[in-house]
Amino acid sequence: MDKETTLAGSTDSRLVNDVLTAFFARSKARAAAMHPDYRAMWEHLEACTVGGKRFRPRLVMTVYTLLGGANQAAAATVAASFELLHTALIVHDDVVDRDFARRGVPNVSGTYRNVAEKQGASPARAEHAGMSVGVIAGDLALSNAYRLLGQVDTDLPIRQRLEDLLDEAIFASAAGELLDVLAPLDPTPQPVDEVLDMARLKTAVYSFETPLQAGAILAGADDRLVRALGEFGRCIGIAYQIADDLIGVFGDESRTGKVGWGDLCEGKRTALISYAAEQPQWPRIARLLADPNLSASGATEVRELLIESKARDRSMQLAADHTEQALQFLLEPFVPQALRDGLTPLSDVVSERIRA
Amino acid sequence: MDKETTLAGSTDSRLVNDVLTAFFARSKARAAAMHPDYRAMWEHLEACTVGGKRFRPRLVMTVYTLLGGANQAAAATVAASFELLHTALIVHDDVVDRDFARRGVPNVSGTYRNVAEKQGASPARAEHAGMSVGVIAGDLALSNAYRLLGQVDTDLPIRQRLEDLLDEAIFASAAGELLDVLAPLDPTPQPVDEVLDMARLKTAVYSFETPLQAGAILAGADDRLVRALGEFGRCIGIAYQIADDLIGVFGDESRTGKVGWGDLCEGKRTALISYAAEQPQWPRIARLLADPNLSASGATEVRELLIESKARDRSMQLAADHTEQALQFLLEPFVPQALRDGLTPLSDVVSERIRA
Repeated sequence: MDKETTLAGSTDSRLVNDVLTAFFARSKARAAAMHPDYRAMWEHLEACTVGGKRFRPRLVMTVYTLLGGANQAAAATVAASFELLHTALIVHDDVVDRDFARRGVPNVSGTYRNVAEKQGASPARAEHAGMSVGVIAGDLALSNAYRLLGQVDTDLPIRQRLEDLLDEAIFASAAGELLDVLAPLDPTPQPVDEVLDMARLKTAVYSFETPLQAGAILAGADDRLVRALGEFGRCIGIAYQIADDLIGVFGDESRTGKVGWGDLCEGKRTALISYAAEQPQWPRIARLLADPNLSASGATEVRELLIESKARDRSMQLAADHTEQALQFLLEPFVPQALRDGLTPLSDVVSERIRA
Repeated sequence: MDKETTLAGSTDSRLVNDVLTAFFARSKARAAAMHPDYRAMWEHLEACTVGGKRFRPRLVMTVYTLLGGANQAAAATVAASFELLHTALIVHDDVVDRDFARRGVPNVSGTYRNVAEKQGASPARAEHAGMSVGVIAGDLALSNAYRLLGQVDTDLPIRQRLEDLLDEAIFASAAGELLDVLAPLDPTPQPVDEVLDMARLKTAVYSFETPLQAGAILAGADDRLVRALGEFGRCIGIAYQIADDLIGVFGDESRTGKVGWGDLCEGKRTALISYAAEQPQWPRIARLLADPNLSASGATEVRELLIESKARDRSMQLAADHTEQALQFLLEPFVPQALRDGLTPLSDVVSERIRA
C-alpha cells in the first residue's frame, strides 16, 4: 500500500498519534491504579495500534483537510476512534481465526498464550488464556472507540451523526464476520454477488465508506457529497478486497509475507472461487482444495486451473470495474477538485495490487 | 434471589422490556436487510436477555423511582443499557469459560456450535464457530449499551456522567475478567484482600455500584448521595460475591443448579480458599483440588476440611461484615428514608444465601 503515503501528511499522522498516545496514557494510569497486570495488558493493546498503516485515520484526515476543515484536533480524535475500532476488530478477528501473531510478532492472544506457557500451563490451557485476554482487550478497544467520539469538539448533531456512522461500521462488520464464520460450513460456493456483499460488510464499510464519510461530516459537507463518498468507498473497498484475494492466491510470497496457498487451504470464499465454481475445471479444483494438507505442487495446479477457467481474468476485470465505478462518483460536479485529486490515487492501490 | 422481587415494580419491568423489545426489533429489521443469518443471530442475542432476572435494570429503576424521578422512560433506557452490558459480559464470559449453555439451554456459542455440527463440521471446528459467533454477538451487545445511553432523554451533562459510569463499569469488569484469567496460572492462593478486589472489579462495579449510581444521577441526586450509593453497592456487591462462592462449594445443588464441586474443580479463587491457605489443613486441600477428576467423596473431604479450618465460618463472617458496612452507608442522614427502605432488603439476599 505504498501509494497510500500520498494520503494525509505527517502533521496529520502526528496529531492522530498524539490523540492515541494521550488516550493510552490515561488508560494505563487508570489501569495501574487497579493492578499492574491490567496496566501491562493496556501496554499490549497499545502495541497493536503501533506499526499498522493507520489507513482509516488517514482517510478521515485526508477528506477533512481537503474539504477545508480547520479543527485538525477534532478530526484527529475521530480518526483515532476509527483506529480503535480497527484494533478491536483485528484483535477479535485474531481470536476468531485462532491467530496468535500479526505481522510476525505475537498479538494480544499470542502474548498471553506465551505468558501462560511460561507459568507452566498446558498448551490447550495457554491457548485458551491467550484467546480470553484477546476477547477482553478487544472489548476495551471497541468501547473506547465510542468514548473517543464523545470527546470530539463539535456540535451535538454532528457528533450524533458520527456516532451513527460508528454504529453502522460496527453493525456491518459484525454481519460480515458472522457470514465469514458461517459460509465455509456450507460446501457449495456462493454466487459472486454474495461474496461481494460479504466483502462490503466485512471490510468496505468500516475501512473505506465510514472513515471517508466521517471526515466529510465533520467538515460540514452536504448530504450529497457524504453519499457520494460512501459510494466511492463501497466500490473502492470491494475492488480492494477482490485484489487482496487475488494476491492471497497468486501474489508473490516475498511481498505479501503470506504463504501463497494459505487462503486456498482455508476455503476462503472469494470472487475467484465463485467464478471457478461455474466452470468445468471446478470438480478438479474442489478435490484439490478439500485436502487439508494441500502441497506446493497441488497449489500450483489449483492456480493453473483458476487461470485456465478464466476465474483469474474475470476477478481482475471485476476489480477494475469496481475501481472504475468508484472513480465515477468522484467525477460528480459537486465533488471539489482538491478532494477528487486527493482520493483518485486510492484507485492506483487496487490496480497495482492486481498487477502484482 | 427471590427477595429481589421487592425491587422495582411490574410497571418498571414492563418499561425496560419495552425499550429492549424496541431495540431488538430495530436491530433485527436492520440485520434482515443484510442477510437472514444475521437476523437469526440477533434473535439468539435477544434470547440471552430474556429469562434473566434483570437485576441491574431493577436497581436503576428502584433508585430512580424512590428518588422521585419522573421520566420513567428515560430511566428504562438507562436500565436497558445496563442489561445490554450484562448480556455482552456474560456472552463473552461464556466464550472465555468455554461454556456452551446457560440456565440449561444453549447460549449463543452453544447454538452456533450446534448449527455447525448439523452442517457436518468436526467437533473442534463446530466449537470454534460457536465461540466466534459468541465474540461477535457480545461485541454488538457491548457497543449498543453505548448506543442506548445516547438515546436517553436528558441534559447533555447528565448523559455524559452516565457515559462515564458505563465506561467505569466496562473498564473495571475487564480488569476483573483479566485477573480472573491470569490468577489461576499462579498456583499460590492470593491473600483475601486481593480476592475481594477482584470480586469488586469483576462483579460489584457493573452489577451494583454503577446501576445504583446511574439511577441516582438521572434523578438529579447530589454527589454525596451518588458516592454513598457507590459505597453501598461496593460493599453489598462484595458480600454477594462471597456468599455466591460459599454456595458454589456448600450450596444445595437442587437449588443452585450447579454441580456442587464445579467451583472447586475450576480452581476458582475465593475468600474461602484464601482463608484455608493460611491453615494447617491447606496441603491436604491443595492436593485434593489439584486432581482434575475430583470425586464426590473427594469434594466432601474438601468441604469438611474447609469447615474444620474455619475457612467457611470466616467467609460467612466476612460476608456479614460487608453487608453490615453496606447498610451503614444507607444510614447516612442525607439518604432519603424511602430509598433506605427500598434498598435495605438487598442485604437479605446475602444473608439468605449464606444460610442456604
